[in-house]
Amino acid sequence: MSEATPTGPHGYSAEKQALMARLKRVEGQVRGLQRMVDEDTYCIDVLTQISAATKALQAVAVGLLEDHLRHCVMQAAADGNADAKIKEATAAIARLVKA
Amino acid sequence: MSEATPTGPHGYSAEKQALMARLKRVEGQVRGLQRMVDEDTYCIDVLTQISAATKALQAVAVGLLEDHLRHCVMQAAADGNADAKIKEATAAIARLVKA
Amino acid sequence: MSEATPTGPHGYSAEKQALMARLKRVEGQVRGLQRMVDEDTYCIDVLTQISAATKALQAVAVGLLEDHLRHCVMQAAADGNADAKIKEATAAIARLVKA
Amino acid sequence: MSEATPTGPHGYSAEKQALMARLKRVEGQVRGLQRMVDEDTYCIDVLTQISAATKALQAVAVGLLEDHLRHCVMQAAADGNADAKIKEATAAIARLVKA
Repeated sequence: MSEATPTGPHGYSAEKQALMARLKRVEGQVRGLQRMVDEDTYCIDVLTQISAATKALQAVAVGLLEDHLRHCVMQAAADGNADAKIKEATAAIARLVKA
Repeated sequence: MSEATPTGPHGYSAEKQALMARLKRVEGQVRGLQRMVDEDTYCIDVLTQISAATKALQAVAVGLLEDHLRHCVMQAAADGNADAKIKEATAAIARLVKA
Repeated sequence: MSEATPTGPHGYSAEKQALMARLKRVEGQVRGLQRMVDEDTYCIDVLTQISAATKALQAVAVGLLEDHLRHCVMQAAADGNADAKIKEATAAIARLVKA
Repeated sequence: MSEATPTGPHGYSAEKQALMARLKRVEGQVRGLQRMVDEDTYCIDVLTQISAATKALQAVAVGLLEDHLRHCVMQAAADGNADAKIKEATAAIARLVKA
């Protein structure tokens, strides 16, 4: 949890259903990976599927980040409080780039 | 599926249980993400968890790759057939690096 | 070039000297890589140095992005024009994450 | 330096010139970045160029890794010494994936 975790709806709330659908799809990919391993699928094909799941997760992250900038950071800017939010968002971007 | 997908046990077979356990853990992380979104968790905390799941998936991939080099590629080398296997493994590494 | 490239000083202008110093350091790392190759340095050591240079470049990018959010995007928000800027910044983040 | 750094020509030696040319190109990209910053180029365009330089560096790394697998690791395998080399290569891959 980040230090002062705001409560209530957040940047992604308007697109919660789409976000949930994407995460369900990633879950399906990870379960597919288990099936592949269970059925002794060739290593390289398992690796290809891991790359696909990783990409899907990162696309979810980039989408979330856009919602966050569009709503939370803009709201903070309107409240004269953008500085801390930008620092926090940048740290999240740094984690994503390195992930 | 890669072109000439070998059948039977592969490089990771000896560590299948450990691999399955790691993939179960990633599945748990992705389900945790769904719960976080469902409960309107703060965007940045969701992003942190996505970075963690991505890292976990990539660690699985690196482990698989090591097993693949150690078993499949070495076997191919013994059969005088390393060249194609190395090209294939390199392509998988390139996908991982970019993922 | 992006479509409507704004002219004049940008988000990073205040920290131009620090940014230049960091890019000079990356240039030094890339020249060091050439020296290593020229002197037949062991592959793995060259790879370690490439990872370091890549990380340094990505750190420059994350810093630039923070400056961009703090200045250009905030200015656009004040002008009631944040939407396009956020879309543009998100696309840059997506390129970084995939890079 | 890695622990037991082998001396003499390595996996990439046969393609030293091509490798040098690629590193020169990356150096040119990094100098281009300095010029862009010096001329107050728009942040997003600088970021696009950083992503390109990062990709170019990673492509060099993947190429080096392929040469390393093809020559050094195969030689080690012929000498009955593949194990340590594969562990070392995997660690380098892990650094690249995270870089």
